[in-house]
Amino acid sequence: MQNSNQRFLLKSRPDGIAGPEHFQEDVQPVRMPGPGELLVESVYISIDPAMRVWVSANPGYVLPVEIGTPMRAGGIGRVLVSEDPAFQVGDFVNARLGWQSHPTVRAADSQKLDLSVGTPQDWIGPLGTTALTAYFGLFDVGAAKAGETVLISAAAGGVGQMAAQMAKIKGCRVVGIAGGAEKCRYLTETLGLDAVIDYKAGGLAEAYAKALPDGCDVFFDNVGGEQLDLAIDHLRENGRIAICGRISQTAASELYGVKNLGLLIGKRGRIQGFIVFDFNARYPEARTWIAEQLKAGTLQQRLHILDGLDKAPEGLGMLFKGENQGKLVVQVAAE
Amino acid sequence: MQNSNQRFLLKSRPDGIAGPEHFQEDVQPVRMPGPGELLVESVYISIDPAMRVWVSANPGYVLPVEIGTPMRAGGIGRVLVSEDPAFQVGDFVNARLGWQSHPTVRAADSQKLDLSVGTPQDWIGPLGTTALTAYFGLFDVGAAKAGETVLISAAAGGVGQMAAQMAKIKGCRVVGIAGGAEKCRYLTETLGLDAVIDYKAGGLAEAYAKALPDGCDVFFDNVGGEQLDLAIDHLRENGRIAICGRISQTAASELYGVKNLGLLIGKRGRIQGFIVFDFNARYPEARTWIAEQLKAGTLQQRLHILDGLDKAPEGLGMLFKGENQGKLVVQVAAE
Repeated sequence: MQNSNQRFLLKSRPDGIAGPEHFQEDVQPVRMPGPGELLVESVYISIDPAMRVWVSANPGYVLPVEIGTPMRAGGIGRVLVSEDPAFQVGDFVNARLGWQSHPTVRAADSQKLDLSVGTPQDWIGPLGTTALTAYFGLFDVGAAKAGETVLISAAAGGVGQMAAQMAKIKGCRVVGIAGGAEKCRYLTETLGLDAVIDYKAGGLAEAYAKALPDGCDVFFDNVGGEQLDLAIDHLRENGRIAICGRISQTAASELYGVKNLGLLIGKRGRIQGFIVFDFNARYPEARTWIAEQLKAGTLQQRLHILDGLDKAPEGLGMLFKGENQGKLVVQVAAE
Repeated sequence: MQNSNQRFLLKSRPDGIAGPEHFQEDVQPVRMPGPGELLVESVYISIDPAMRVWVSANPGYVLPVEIGTPMRAGGIGRVLVSEDPAFQVGDFVNARLGWQSHPTVRAADSQKLDLSVGTPQDWIGPLGTTALTAYFGLFDVGAAKAGETVLISAAAGGVGQMAAQMAKIKGCRVVGIAGGAEKCRYLTETLGLDAVIDYKAGGLAEAYAKALPDGCDVFFDNVGGEQLDLAIDHLRENGRIAICGRISQTAASELYGVKNLGLLIGKRGRIQGFIVFDFNARYPEARTWIAEQLKAGTLQQRLHILDGLDKAPEGLGMLFKGENQGKLVVQVAAE
């Protein structure tokens, strides 16, 4: 039995990009679970753009992570000790692990994974919250329909690559925005997107015009800023914009001012922000659809796996520098 | 029988605020109607913010008004000569009169007014397109419900005053934005609004915070720019913004950049642009509701009536300087 719990605590609130300097490592004895609790060995911990919002003083829709407490994070772990009859030692669970190697969590907040549906890695990947975000953002908020053109920003990122593939499966023309030739190649050659826009290549407005000669019906936005402004310009009549994230703005020193909102009038355009947790009751529906795609081999999740909990603090910064290739995960222990 | 038709033709496309210098008066002999046409005497001509868009080179959702042709405008007129069996001499019609004293129009594009529902002035006012815009923008696009807080920009203007009253009738808390003490007094004392924001008084952010201590559920936006940005900041969770107009931006030399769009994510906020013509099939439903309110005395339309077609060109400029007190109309002839 492991006796110690490695943790990374929030040390200070970042102004710009978060990094190792904002977190403090410590090691504590594991806390044995009380009734209704589980001692868990963390296996995979998800590193998400939303974390940058959670460490701000006023995240808005969730409580901020308090200074001196373990960084908040979701992940997949293995039950070591169970004080809840619904969980057995060796079960894999989806839980609020935080940046901890051996957290003690509430059983009521944890979900036992059905390993007949997917592996633990599938559950942090294509069956996880990131993929569910893509599913509900694309099909519900964006209301993407077969034959429509869907534009996706951060298309090689965790949510973006899932949204891109789902839109292709649905029968849409899909245009992805990503930074750099390698990511763009991945989008066209591996995921089969119809066109890409490399935002790091310069000439963004021209690139939009070239990739979207007839505009787009749906924009799935993970980035905000200029990419959003240009998407409004290229939005077709009755077009929909699902605002999932704003990674270009989260750590920006000055917010970008979007100038094209007035175009929404004549275009009858819609912009809708959303949070995946609101669709909680419909997760099973989405997971059934995703599991079918996984079995059929039509959907894949490219994970960018960092080795060891030590990598979590720098991993968070990578997201905001566009350094991750796919959904970012820290592997804390072997499956 | 009148033999001449006074017209105002578009002379040049304005860069900023439109005014008399952009229009050319001429007088032509009236054109006698052919089959399916009507010769009409203009009585009321509506002056609308959308006109500034129509005279631009690329309005987007309608064809531009061509240089050298009569300015496009809707209005109410009296039939002088009918070459269509559905219309009689003396009938009042709602038609695309343009800025003309005696236009010849297509009967198929004209609607005979039911004077049992309202007077010709009611039909240019509370039964007209301006009021319908308020109705569908507030209840459909904005989905305002009893008990919610509704914020309305240009609340003393043509659309705004109708939306404000309709929201009060619905049982909402209504906050209006207008420029100057006179308009603000009108909103609180005559229309009974719950609070007002005078955007010309300075300290706009503080005024929003004071008038909207718990935020707003619906923002009916006729103005755009900073007023929209602040409204996003004060939008409540699941709030809706109906973008009806952007009068602060239409003739602006530089567009305002809206910085708060990222807040829509956590707020689950929605922004939706709309054009009233899309609701055409449901005009009778709206007019039935409006007529009931008129009869009950719960709804009024404050018209700002300019006397004579000569006033149309300067009237258009008044809208963009905030000089109109209510819906702007040119009276061309007596009822």
